[in-house]
Amino acid sequence: MIYTVTLNPSIDYVVYPDEPIQLGQLNRISKHHKYPGGKGINVSRILSELAIESTALGFVGGFTGDFLKQQLQDRAVSTAFVEVEEDTRINVKIKGESETEINGAGPHITPEKQAELVSKFRQLKQGDIVVLAGSKPSGLPGDFYQQLIRLITEKGASFIIDTTGDELMQSLEHQPFLIKPNRDELEELYETVIDSKEAVVQYGRDLLNKGARHVIVSMGKDGAMLFTHEGIYHGSAKPGRLVNSVGAGDSMVAGFTGTFEQTKDIKEAFRYSLACGSATAFSEDLAVKEDIEKVLQTITIKQWEE
Amino acid sequence: MIYTVTLNPSIDYVVYPDEPIQLGQLNRISKHHKYPGGKGINVSRILSELAIESTALGFVGGFTGDFLKQQLQDRAVSTAFVEVEEDTRINVKIKGESETEINGAGPHITPEKQAELVSKFRQLKQGDIVVLAGSKPSGLPGDFYQQLIRLITEKGASFIIDTTGDELMQSLEHQPFLIKPNRDELEELYETVIDSKEAVVQYGRDLLNKGARHVIVSMGKDGAMLFTHEGIYHGSAKPGRLVNSVGAGDSMVAGFTGTFEQTKDIKEAFRYSLACGSATAFSEDLAVKEDIEKVLQTITIKQWEE
Repeated sequence: MIYTVTLNPSIDYVVYPDEPIQLGQLNRISKHHKYPGGKGINVSRILSELAIESTALGFVGGFTGDFLKQQLQDRAVSTAFVEVEEDTRINVKIKGESETEINGAGPHITPEKQAELVSKFRQLKQGDIVVLAGSKPSGLPGDFYQQLIRLITEKGASFIIDTTGDELMQSLEHQPFLIKPNRDELEELYETVIDSKEAVVQYGRDLLNKGARHVIVSMGKDGAMLFTHEGIYHGSAKPGRLVNSVGAGDSMVAGFTGTFEQTKDIKEAFRYSLACGSATAFSEDLAVKEDIEKVLQTITIKQWEE
Repeated sequence: MIYTVTLNPSIDYVVYPDEPIQLGQLNRISKHHKYPGGKGINVSRILSELAIESTALGFVGGFTGDFLKQQLQDRAVSTAFVEVEEDTRINVKIKGESETEINGAGPHITPEKQAELVSKFRQLKQGDIVVLAGSKPSGLPGDFYQQLIRLITEKGASFIIDTTGDELMQSLEHQPFLIKPNRDELEELYETVIDSKEAVVQYGRDLLNKGARHVIVSMGKDGAMLFTHEGIYHGSAKPGRLVNSVGAGDSMVAGFTGTFEQTKDIKEAFRYSLACGSATAFSEDLAVKEDIEKVLQTITIKQWEE
């Protein structure tokens, strides 16, 4: 089973104002969408488009949390969230010439609720894959992901971590199945400028050497590179119109993880990773099945030769 | 029984950004509130603070509608909403140096759902009071309030209408128990400038003559005037700091209607009207019981002498 963990999920309330937003005024919208938001949840939603089962974990609360669970269940995603007292946050995304976001802080998570989530990890089995993705709500200890990772590895399960900075670096010694920094994150990790594929190869290989079992570095319109101990690959999709970069990285994680779980074929997993990521980048919301299948036909993958 | 009708209710999602809002950026909030919104609902909430029963009617839908019902029931307000398919809207109110509002359009109401609400009015009895307040969602016929008013008067119940323009003027021949324009609305109704209490008296009296049984004209810091066929009164509260003018008018309607229903004393009803309106104007959200009782001690009412 694939488990996704979203510690600080949200409802993303996307509004399209009739006229450009005026601060200090009453603005009207006639079109809006509400999406279940959060990186782990995005991964589960894409897995569901690929007809791959997953269970979403994390903290939800209140009527907004109920909406989130219902939306996931409607999309055939299993949920095993820990219920907290305060409402799951609503993030407002105002679409216009530029996108304005107003993000809430999320509920406070008590030590009891933290323990309740941790205890769910004691049921993990060998072969399970856990995707840890996204920011932590306030009140969680700084090493919360590390606590989870220790349990995951104790149980013989594998994990994927999609986060940044120290959190990511500390996870490497536990041999994450996959990490997926984008080029900007790679530059931050190594405090350097990365302006060529050769430089990407250098740092991607370093992450492998530090413990990651697979590394995908996404590079926007330049495609992505996959690093494995067997070889390095570069892949890309036929260029399309970038509509939405939000969730593209999560879609890559989902495509890779789900396909690998089903096929054990690393190149096929990378192909789906690229297709899911690109299809989401070309969509208003996360990609749906038809979009992914269309983009899949346009993927090219080449082994990197030095 | 007092019934309040809110055709287009909302959840008011009030957010306090950590820094002034920047368009095109990610903004963070660490404080927010969610209130059940809509003019009729405001009236029911204030009635509940006065320990007076009411039943809220209108259209609600989805998980946001469920929240709304729950909030009202938690405040001891009965609800008998018609359930519609689409979600009750979320209005975002961004507090800062100036207030920015982003208001949704609300669900589409099918003819079947309209008929379902109308049919609830067939159970009205003599002595019942119905408060009709606020805007109509798109899709409702232009004469929807008039349809409701015909049924209300047929049943021998009375109605209060808090709306503007033609809608208000058309209602007068059906002898509303109360109308409550503010000074700006009075100026619009008569397409004139109203810059003295004498002018207010002239137009207030005209509304009585056209059919209204009671008229309250609210004038912000200048208090309010009550017009009845027995006399005209001016009343005011001790000045306080204006925090929030939203819902002050609804609070006046609630104070008047609820107190009149209980005491049949028109001056006492006006006293509570002024106390509820002022107390809300001095509060972040609608006023609560304690605030209303405090302001009540400061109300002065004088008969108007020409």
